[in-house]
Amino acid sequence: MTDMLAPGAVIGILGGGQLGRMLSVAAARLGFVTHIFEPGANPPAGQVADRVTTAAYDDAEALRAFADAVDVITYEFENIPTEALDLLEAHRPIHPGREALRVSQDRLTEKNFLQGLGLKTAPFADVSDLASLNEALDQIRAPAILKTRRFGYDGKGQARLHASADAESALADMAGAPAILEGFVNFSHEVSVIAARGLDGQVACFDPGENVHRDGILHTTTVPARLSPAQRTDAVLLAANILNALDYVGVMGVELFVTPEGLVVNEIAPRVHNSGHWTQNGCAVDQFEQHIRAVAGWPLGDGQRHSDVMMENLIGADMDRVPDLARERDVALHLYGKAEVKPGRKMGHFNRIAR
Amino acid sequence: MTDMLAPGAVIGILGGGQLGRMLSVAAARLGFVTHIFEPGANPPAGQVADRVTTAAYDDAEALRAFADAVDVITYEFENIPTEALDLLEAHRPIHPGREALRVSQDRLTEKNFLQGLGLKTAPFADVSDLASLNEALDQIRAPAILKTRRFGYDGKGQARLHASADAESALADMAGAPAILEGFVNFSHEVSVIAARGLDGQVACFDPGENVHRDGILHTTTVPARLSPAQRTDAVLLAANILNALDYVGVMGVELFVTPEGLVVNEIAPRVHNSGHWTQNGCAVDQFEQHIRAVAGWPLGDGQRHSDVMMENLIGADMDRVPDLARERDVALHLYGKAEVKPGRKMGHFNRIAR
Repeated sequence: MTDMLAPGAVIGILGGGQLGRMLSVAAARLGFVTHIFEPGANPPAGQVADRVTTAAYDDAEALRAFADAVDVITYEFENIPTEALDLLEAHRPIHPGREALRVSQDRLTEKNFLQGLGLKTAPFADVSDLASLNEALDQIRAPAILKTRRFGYDGKGQARLHASADAESALADMAGAPAILEGFVNFSHEVSVIAARGLDGQVACFDPGENVHRDGILHTTTVPARLSPAQRTDAVLLAANILNALDYVGVMGVELFVTPEGLVVNEIAPRVHNSGHWTQNGCAVDQFEQHIRAVAGWPLGDGQRHSDVMMENLIGADMDRVPDLARERDVALHLYGKAEVKPGRKMGHFNRIAR
Repeated sequence: MTDMLAPGAVIGILGGGQLGRMLSVAAARLGFVTHIFEPGANPPAGQVADRVTTAAYDDAEALRAFADAVDVITYEFENIPTEALDLLEAHRPIHPGREALRVSQDRLTEKNFLQGLGLKTAPFADVSDLASLNEALDQIRAPAILKTRRFGYDGKGQARLHASADAESALADMAGAPAILEGFVNFSHEVSVIAARGLDGQVACFDPGENVHRDGILHTTTVPARLSPAQRTDAVLLAANILNALDYVGVMGVELFVTPEGLVVNEIAPRVHNSGHWTQNGCAVDQFEQHIRAVAGWPLGDGQRHSDVMMENLIGADMDRVPDLARERDVALHLYGKAEVKPGRKMGHFNRIAR
C-alpha cells in the first residue's frame, strides 16, 4: 500500500468535541500531528491536538488556511455546512467523502438510500406541512415520531405523536424545518455495527454492540450483543453493503433494530460513533485509530476483540460517580475535559472490561 | 479520598519526550489538562499537551511561571537539576518526591540505599581516580562495568572492563565524572516490576515483565515473565518495600536480575518505564494513567492484566517496519511523533496482544 500517509503528516479534523479529541489521540498514537477546526472556544479536542483553528464554518479565509496546513481532512460530525465542504474539498482530500455526507445529513435521503439497497427501515413519509403530516399519519398511524430531516442528534429535533391529534403541536416543534414521520418498529433490542472501509476498499467490522438508551441518549453498549450467528453475519454484511455503496472511507456507525422479521436499519452516522467507544478497551485497534487508518490510507485493524466490554456514558451529574468508578477494578475511565457540567451533556464514559 | 485532584486541574510535566507524551495522553483521559516544560523545541509531548513551555532548567522566571500555571508537578526523567527542583518545590507539590530523586540520581547512593533495605545488588565500589579503580578491581575482579554515578541511561556513560588492563581507558571514558565499578551478576534473565504508590500509601504492582536488551537498549518486554510463584511474590514485595522506604508517590520501574540465589536489584527509575509500556494494551489502567492517578491523589488501578502482551521497541530504522506491523493482527502501534529518525533513537513501540 503505497498511499500510506507517513507519520509526521498532519490530519485536519473538523469539530473539537469528544470524538475529535479521541480521534486526535489515536492519530498521535500513529505518529500523526493533528489540527482541529472548531468554531467554539477551548474545544476538548484542542487539549490533545497540536494545533487549533478557532473560526466559523463560513470563514473562508480560515478554512483555506486550515486546508493548506493539513494533508488530509476528516470530521467528527456530519452536519458540516455544504459551502465549507466545497471550499475544503477544492484544496485537500476529505474522508469520508461527500456522498456519505449527502446521504446521512438528511433522514429522508438516507432512508431512500437504504431502501434502495434492499435494506429494511422504519416506515417513513416526507412531511412539509400539516396536510402532508396528516396524510403520513393515515399511512403510518400513531404512535409515530416526527423528526427534522437535518441536524438532529441525541433525540433533539424530534416530537412523539401518541395520536393523530398531536399532529399540530408536533409540527410546531419542527419550527418550519422539513421533516419526516417515522413509524415505530417492533424491535426487541438495538445493536450497532461499527464498520470501517479503507482507501483500498478493504472492509473491517467490529463485533456488533447492544445499545440501551435513556432519555433519547445512548446509555450503555455491551459487547457481545445478543444476536444469533445468522443475525451477526447479517449485521456485518449489511453494514459492508452500505459502505461499499457509498465508496466510503473511514468508520461508520450503523444502528440496527433486531426484530423477529430481521434487522431494520435505524440510522447511519458517517463518523466514529458513541456505540463504538467500547473498542478502546476491547481491541488492539480501536474505532478512532481505525478511522484514522482509513483516512490515512493505512491497512485496517481486523476488528476482532481481545475482551468483552460494557461501555457506559457519563452524562451531566454522572461526573459525581467518577471517584467511585476510579476505585473499581476493570473500569477504564475516559473523560472529555469539558469545563462545565450540564444536564444531558456527555462528560465522559467508562469501559468495564470482562475477565 | 478527599485529596483527589478534580478533572480540569492542570498537571505540569517536566520533560517532553515520549514518556511525557504518553503521560499527557493518560492525564487527558482522566480529564486533566497538561503543561509540558521542556528545553528542546517541538517536543513529542507538546503535540498532545494543552500547553508547552520551551525554556532551560536554569531559567528561573520560566520555571516560576510554569509552577504558577499548574496544580501539581511530575516528570518523565530523573536527571532534573537540583536548583530547578528547589525552585519548583517552593511553589507546587512535586511527585515523586525529592528523596526518590536524590537516591536514584546517583548510582552509588542508590546501591547503598538498596543494600540498606537488605536487598541484593551487583557488587560495586566507589571510583574517583585510577587508584580507587584499581582497588575496586582487586575486590570485584574483571569483567566489570565502570559507570558514571549520575546522568547515565540506555547504556550511555558506561565502559566495560574485560581485564584489569582496561582500567585506564575505561576511566578516560568517564571524562572525570565520579563513577562506580559494578561486577557482573550471573543471572538467567532480567525482569522488571512496574510499581505504583498512591498519596495515601496504597501500593499496586503490575505483573513483572521479562526484558531482553540489545546494544544496551531495551528490546522487548514479555508478560508474564518466567518466574516461579515464589519469585513473583518476592519481586512484588521488594518493589513495594522500596516504594514505602522512599514514601514514594507515583510509578517506579524496578529492574531485577533473576539468579539461582534469588532476585538482585539492577536499578530503579523514579518514573514510568519503557518496560511498562505493555500495560497500555494489557490493563484497564496502564502505567501512565497509574502514575497520573498517584500524582493526582486518585485511587490506583489494581495492576491486574486482561491480556498477555509482548512489547517491542522501534529503534531508529525499525520505523521501516511500520507498514508491515500495521498489517498484523493483535498488534497495537505507539509512535512518538519524532520528526527525525536517528540510529539508536526510540521512535515508537508496539504491543502484541496474546489471544
